Amino acid sequence: MNQTHFETINIAGVLENIRSSSPLIHHITNTVTINDCANITLALGGSPVMADSPEEAGEMASFAGALVINMGTLHPSAISSMIKAGTRAREIGKPVVFDPVGAGATQFRQSTAKEILRNVRPTIIKGNAAEIKFLAGEVSNQRGVDSLDSNADQAALALARSSGSIVAATGAIDTVTDGKLLYKISGGSPMLSRITGTGCMTSSLVGCFSSVMASPLFAAILGVLTMKLAGEKAQIALKPGQGSGQFRINLFDAISLLTPSDYVWEERITYVTL
Amino acid sequence: MNQTHFETINIAGVLENIRSSSPLIHHITNTVTINDCANITLALGGSPVMADSPEEAGEMASFAGALVINMGTLHPSAISSMIKAGTRAREIGKPVVFDPVGAGATQFRQSTAKEILRNVRPTIIKGNAAEIKFLAGEVSNQRGVDSLDSNADQAALALARSSGSIVAATGAIDTVTDGKLLYKISGGSPMLSRITGTGCMTSSLVGCFSSVMASPLFAAILGVLTMKLAGEKAQIALKPGQGSGQFRINLFDAISLLTPSDYVWEERITYVTL
Amino acid sequence: MNQTHFETINIAGVLENIRSSSPLIHHITNTVTINDCANITLALGGSPVMADSPEEAGEMASFAGALVINMGTLHPSAISSMIKAGTRAREIGKPVVFDPVGAGATQFRQSTAKEILRNVRPTIIKGNAAEIKFLAGEVSNQRGVDSLDSNADQAALALARSSGSIVAATGAIDTVTDGKLLYKISGGSPMLSRITGTGCMTSSLVGCFSSVMASPLFAAILGVLTMKLAGEKAQIALKPGQGSGQFRINLFDAISLLTPSDYVWEERITYVTL
Repeated sequence: MNQTHFETINIAGVLENIRSSSPLIHHITNTVTINDCANITLALGGSPVMADSPEEAGEMASFAGALVINMGTLHPSAISSMIKAGTRAREIGKPVVFDPVGAGATQFRQSTAKEILRNVRPTIIKGNAAEIKFLAGEVSNQRGVDSLDSNADQAALALARSSGSIVAATGAIDTVTDGKLLYKISGGSPMLSRITGTGCMTSSLVGCFSSVMASPLFAAILGVLTMKLAGEKAQIALKPGQGSGQFRINLFDAISLLTPSDYVWEERITYVTL
Repeated sequence: MNQTHFETINIAGVLENIRSSSPLIHHITNTVTINDCANITLALGGSPVMADSPEEAGEMASFAGALVINMGTLHPSAISSMIKAGTRAREIGKPVVFDPVGAGATQFRQSTAKEILRNVRPTIIKGNAAEIKFLAGEVSNQRGVDSLDSNADQAALALARSSGSIVAATGAIDTVTDGKLLYKISGGSPMLSRITGTGCMTSSLVGCFSSVMASPLFAAILGVLTMKLAGEKAQIALKPGQGSGQFRINLFDAISLLTPSDYVWEERITYVTL
Repeated sequence: MNQTHFETINIAGVLENIRSSSPLIHHITNTVTINDCANITLALGGSPVMADSPEEAGEMASFAGALVINMGTLHPSAISSMIKAGTRAREIGKPVVFDPVGAGATQFRQSTAKEILRNVRPTIIKGNAAEIKFLAGEVSNQRGVDSLDSNADQAALALARSSGSIVAATGAIDTVTDGKLLYKISGGSPMLSRITGTGCMTSSLVGCFSSVMASPLFAAILGVLTMKLAGEKAQIALKPGQGSGQFRINLFDAISLLTPSDYVWEERITYVTL
């Protein structure tokens, strides 16, 4: 398969594969959006497990189809779990998705993000523009866990090349690259940034796709694309007088009702010649 | 009251009792569904409190109408809290509901589940088929926190007899037994397994019922039955284009609007002659 | 501005200020309602960050527009974070909102609430009647984290005077005072007590307002008033067959769609001559 021709992916087969095999997606994640991540995994057809204690994280990872590490609310014991589970998943050839939430925002997050990169060597790194810029060694514009940066193409490329990971930098337009090929994914809804957890849930979607696809590059693209498509549907389904509360419910509805015909590649994905 | 005749329960009185006395339901539970458990307790009419620190768990339990222990996300400090609070609740004669989430999935969960059984001697154990089979010493088929097992009647009976607890094994059809009498509860919706937390919330409902009913066996039956009835209503209320997000909202709606006439015993509960 | 004339506040300017500047609201809060607090902050236009680890709490607070400390689920490491972040925020002149959830319910909460008062000296204390009475040294009627008390005017005044903080005591009618001026805020919906988190979310709203307003007294009034107004809208939007689940969604909708014309001072706020 020519990787520049994304439309050759058998999306019907991928969705059916997730729903029929219900891959176990092991999360070590934050307490803010942990419920959202579990529900979005279930909505897509996966089976979430959120075991984050060092006493069991490594063992649980050995049963998983993919591991999602998210440092939204960071504690020393969770870092230990992330490294144990991440190392174990990599040893047995399972994909690891790393969401470096707020990397760069504090010294604790800076050192932890680098420690995880170095020790786990994640299959896929999914962050916002500021997080990816920080990890790439660029000057980033971070405030709390939100990015004030936009275009992160150069940072994503540099990070993919230095880390060996697939890198997805999300924003109004997402960038996904393996360091050689680079794709831009457009679409979505401005409402996606009016609720918490859409970034974390995107990592869960990427985890689901990566557990059943041979190409982590395409799994990352499908993950960020799926969130954008669901965001569009969730916004369209809003009625007058409905706001961010109902948008959030519509988002879960949209993911749980996805069909292959929802995936309109041509309008959403652009391959960028480097 | 002949316990084989479930229809003699005064469900109107039980619901009214919960709503008017608003029993304090102390939870020591996981971070994934803790918000769901609090909201379902409120929806039924109870008053949730989620104090899970060893510094106060025992003292808080002494004020509660029932204690719910759930090991979904398991940490050493929470285990200490579970045992302190569980011991205290049992000393003062308050019911303890134990939800052994993922028991059997990892060595940490295996040893913790047994430690809690041994030290707390819960009034009611509510788990899925695989969890109940593991606790009964049978070979179980566990993956993450999900069960791949179905019929757990024999395991439920064995566990009830060895532990002295009421045992509720949930699934497409639930089994509830005290080791002498055994009931099967049918109904519900396949959507209940498409969202996280329905198992945990069932334990919260069992906790609410157990706090106002003399029979923990009947409280367990009412708890699992109530989730099945609400699941049916939540599914019926779904409109075209709505999926797992709205189903979850409908579930809270259904619990908050329960009336005695919703309880149709004949079609849902079967007494099994052993 | 005469502070007894609340209607002189430029509510349009305040709402616009929050939405355009998107102030970072740092929360150190409980695991039950942490997702709700993040979503309500976003719905109003703020930017939530929930970093609660002692390793970074102080540093994160230095970037924030306001800090919200909530002791709903209390752990020793979080207490250390609360004091570090609270001290830092006060040093740099940022408002600190303290929600003493369950203060008085256990010895651990009693001593922690007092420790935070003494060490942080919060800008605003927002609690229910029982919590405020406990902090004021009165006999309080606390059960779990719920208040069985009603009128807390005298306690709120006494606490404001002894602590130097603005005090908001919430209930069917809210009391807000700086020890010299006292306001009563009415309205709302009985449904607000049928879901978890409305108290915690009120503190988040107070945090947002305090980050952009010169007067913490008026920020506290606007915070509690906004929750009451949203509760009214959420209830009115309920359709037959909808209960506490949909009410909760409507509440987020209402906050995300607030307009200046929603603020009807005359009917809701009463200035009480002391």
